[in-house]
Amino acid sequence: MLAAAVNPSDINTIEGKYPLAPATPAVAGFEGVGVVEAVGAGVSRQRVGDHVVPIEHGQGTWCTLGRFQERSWYRVPADLPTAAAGALVINPPTALRLLEEFVPLRPGDSIALTGASSAVGRYLLQLARWRGVNAVAVVRARRDAAADAALAAELKALGAAVVSREGALREALAEAGLPPPVLGLDCVAGEAGGELARALAPGGTLVVYGGMAQASLKLPPSLLIFKNLTVRGFW
Amino acid sequence: MLAAAVNPSDINTIEGKYPLAPATPAVAGFEGVGVVEAVGAGVSRQRVGDHVVPIEHGQGTWCTLGRFQERSWYRVPADLPTAAAGALVINPPTALRLLEEFVPLRPGDSIALTGASSAVGRYLLQLARWRGVNAVAVVRARRDAAADAALAAELKALGAAVVSREGALREALAEAGLPPPVLGLDCVAGEAGGELARALAPGGTLVVYGGMAQASLKLPPSLLIFKNLTVRGFW
Repeated sequence: MLAAAVNPSDINTIEGKYPLAPATPAVAGFEGVGVVEAVGAGVSRQRVGDHVVPIEHGQGTWCTLGRFQERSWYRVPADLPTAAAGALVINPPTALRLLEEFVPLRPGDSIALTGASSAVGRYLLQLARWRGVNAVAVVRARRDAAADAALAAELKALGAAVVSREGALREALAEAGLPPPVLGLDCVAGEAGGELARALAPGGTLVVYGGMAQASLKLPPSLLIFKNLTVRGFW
Repeated sequence: MLAAAVNPSDINTIEGKYPLAPATPAVAGFEGVGVVEAVGAGVSRQRVGDHVVPIEHGQGTWCTLGRFQERSWYRVPADLPTAAAGALVINPPTALRLLEEFVPLRPGDSIALTGASSAVGRYLLQLARWRGVNAVAVVRARRDAAADAALAAELKALGAAVVSREGALREALAEAGLPPPVLGLDCVAGEAGGELARALAPGGTLVVYGGMAQASLKLPPSLLIFKNLTVRGFW
C-alpha cells in the first residue's frame, strides 16, 4: 500500500465494538491506496503500476503487501494525491450521501454539523458551499482561544458560514441571523447531539452517523412531539 | 356538558407546559360531550337536545354551560354512551393515526407500545387485533402481582398478544416467540422509551407521542446507525 487512512471505525473494529468483525487473524484498515505489483492470469482491468483503492468492505489496508481479488479494488488516476486517494472511499461518499439523501436542500437553507473538523465534516462544508447551503460548523473548544480562532478560520475557508463551539450553538445561530437548520448531521451524540437537535427548525431532521462522545443522545420528547423532529441514523 | 375527559394534555395546559396556551381567563378541557340547550338564529345543523362533541381545539369542556359556535361542535348519536362520547375526539383518532400513518403494517407483524393501559393504549390494542397485528403491551409494574395479573388479563382481553412490565420487554418478547416489533409507540420516554427502541426490529420506527416519565429519551447512537431505527414524534 502507498498509504492507508486511520478512521474511528478502524479503531472500533480492533476494539471489538464494530458490528462487522473480520475472521481473525485479519489485517485492519478500511481505506487506503495501493499500487498493483503483480497480476494473476485472469486479471483484465488492472495492470502492474495501477493505483487502486478498495471498494469492498474489510479488505485490510494496514499492510505493505497483500493479495486481493480484482473486483475488490478500483483503479484511480496515478496523479491523485496519495492522501486524497488513501481516504477516498469512505468519507467523501459519506458526506455526499448525508447531504443528499435525507432532506431536499435548497440554496439559502441552513444545515448544522457536529464534529465539523473531522474528515467528513470538512467534506460536508465544501459540499454545502458548492450547493449554496449555509453550513453551521460545531466543534469542541480547543486548548486556547488562538487555536479556536485558527480552526474557525480554517473551517470558514472550507465553506462554513458559522463556526460555533459545542454548548454555544444557540447564541452562534442567533448572532449569525441564519434561518434555523433544517438538517442536523451529528457524529458526536451525547450533549452535543442533543444541542444540535434543539437548534433545528420545526420539522427538521437529525441524522446521527457517529457517537464520538460515547454517550447516548438525550432527546426531550417535546422536540419530537411538538417540534416534529425526525431522527435517523446513517452507517 | 354531560361529561368531559381529563387528559394529560389538560393538566399540562393548566401547568403552562403545553405549547398552546389559551387567553386567560379560560375554561380547561379539550374533550367532552354536551347537549344543545338553545340555538341562535343562524344555527341550521344543530337542534336543542342534540348531543355534540368539540371538533375545534381549546373549546373548554370543563363547564356546566357554555356558548359556542355551531361549526366548533359535531353532532353524535344521543345513544352513544356518555363516557365514550366524552372521550371521542382525541384518543381514538390518535390511536388510529399512530397505527396507520408511520409504518405500513401487515397481518402477523408485531408492534410494541408503552403506557399500554392508557386510553390511547387500549384503543391501540383493539385496533391492532382488528388489523391482525401482534401488539406487545408494556406497562409499569402495579402494586402487587395480583394487580399485575389483573391488568395483563384486561389488556389481553382487549387485544394484546403479550403484556410485559417495563424493564422486562426483551425477555417477554423472547418468551412469546414473536417477530421483533417494526413499530414502537411510546408515550413514556425516559428508560421505558429507550427499552422500546432497543426491542425494535432493524429498520424499525419509534414514534414518541408523550413523555409521561418526564425524562428525555436516551438513544445509543448505535441503534440509529447500525440498526437503522427512525425516531419520529406525533402530536
